[in-house]
Amino acid sequence: MKSIVLVSGGMDSCVTAAIAAAEGADLAMLHSSYGQLTESRERRAFESIADHYHAERMWLDQRYLGRIGGSSLTDAAIPVSEANLTSTEIPSSYVPFRNAHFLSAAVSWAEVIGAGQIFIGAVFADSSGYPDCRPEYYEAFNELVRRGTKPTTQIKIVTPLIGLHKHEIVRKGIELKAPLNLTWSCYRNSEVACGTCDSCALRLRAFAQAGVRDPILYAITL
Amino acid sequence: MKSIVLVSGGMDSCVTAAIAAAEGADLAMLHSSYGQLTESRERRAFESIADHYHAERMWLDQRYLGRIGGSSLTDAAIPVSEANLTSTEIPSSYVPFRNAHFLSAAVSWAEVIGAGQIFIGAVFADSSGYPDCRPEYYEAFNELVRRGTKPTTQIKIVTPLIGLHKHEIVRKGIELKAPLNLTWSCYRNSEVACGTCDSCALRLRAFAQAGVRDPILYAITL
Repeated sequence: MKSIVLVSGGMDSCVTAAIAAAEGADLAMLHSSYGQLTESRERRAFESIADHYHAERMWLDQRYLGRIGGSSLTDAAIPVSEANLTSTEIPSSYVPFRNAHFLSAAVSWAEVIGAGQIFIGAVFADSSGYPDCRPEYYEAFNELVRRGTKPTTQIKIVTPLIGLHKHEIVRKGIELKAPLNLTWSCYRNSEVACGTCDSCALRLRAFAQAGVRDPILYAITL
Repeated sequence: MKSIVLVSGGMDSCVTAAIAAAEGADLAMLHSSYGQLTESRERRAFESIADHYHAERMWLDQRYLGRIGGSSLTDAAIPVSEANLTSTEIPSSYVPFRNAHFLSAAVSWAEVIGAGQIFIGAVFADSSGYPDCRPEYYEAFNELVRRGTKPTTQIKIVTPLIGLHKHEIVRKGIELKAPLNLTWSCYRNSEVACGTCDSCALRLRAFAQAGVRDPILYAITL
């Protein structure tokens, strides 16, 4: 079955792609430039992952999201928070309603190319507390897709990582030979990962708990 | 209350803006360039309507939707169907999952600027049969917004025209002094409306049924 995978270039989307590939899906990968400050590096990661899987690809210019603003990921004037993995607050990196923009594009593309599944690497357990990473959000999106597409269209959004802890995602990636060395997670820099933002902290803790060395470089001594 | 109005530049969105203005809303208008072939004319209509209401405004470059394709509105190789107002088929002008792109942007913007309502001029009665114009689609979208935004965010999508027939929309526009002379509905041309595409046919029938002269020019003799 033709399947679209949303590939940010991070670890979660890379492992999601590996899962879709392992299911034998005919892969079509979608990546968005939404004004994120580290986009040049993220896009390079996306292209490398898509090359690795010999996937059809679609790049989206959604930089209007950066103009709408409201997030430290797209606005250099809003500082990237230092990681606080025990807080239940929504961090400054939250981009208002972001995933709906990616998923809407994926649904439009799926309806045009006849893809039946859309894979997204949303993680609820161990997540940063973003509201659009919760299982009930994806249930609502699937209902929206049923109601908002042609009667003959059958598209399902699948979230294979949503119940996994981050270290389980690392192990799944290793098991499926996902090219984790090609991925990029840092919210702050674009050449060497900072090691101290939310996203780096989650990633490093995950590799430590999985007992595996992270193959990418960090600016801090680990 | 600050309220966002999605303004394509057509008659329905203009009357929707008039309704929001009549409710005393503090208006913020949003318009998308999504690769529609008649966009230069539509954008001019949007700007004129926003000027008329002295509204804050946001323009979105969503031309990636045109690259995704699948519609006669964005792909000159797909012919615009001649109107068939009795058919229940989804016409060639259907842009897959289009309204989700506009609404997602409106929700993101609303969360940033603190708007509590998003007005969209979707019409179900007398509509072209697009799945994303049905009341149950908007119910599902409101549920998605509740689940996908911050717990403190309160945003409601409202569809004041959804149950109205087109001639009732014309009458409502006249009653509220909506600047219908500034609007643009044609799917085919960009200087003088063709009068024969689905959108023109719906509009002309509506004015005829309302017993009012349409203030814009047509290429055909009426």
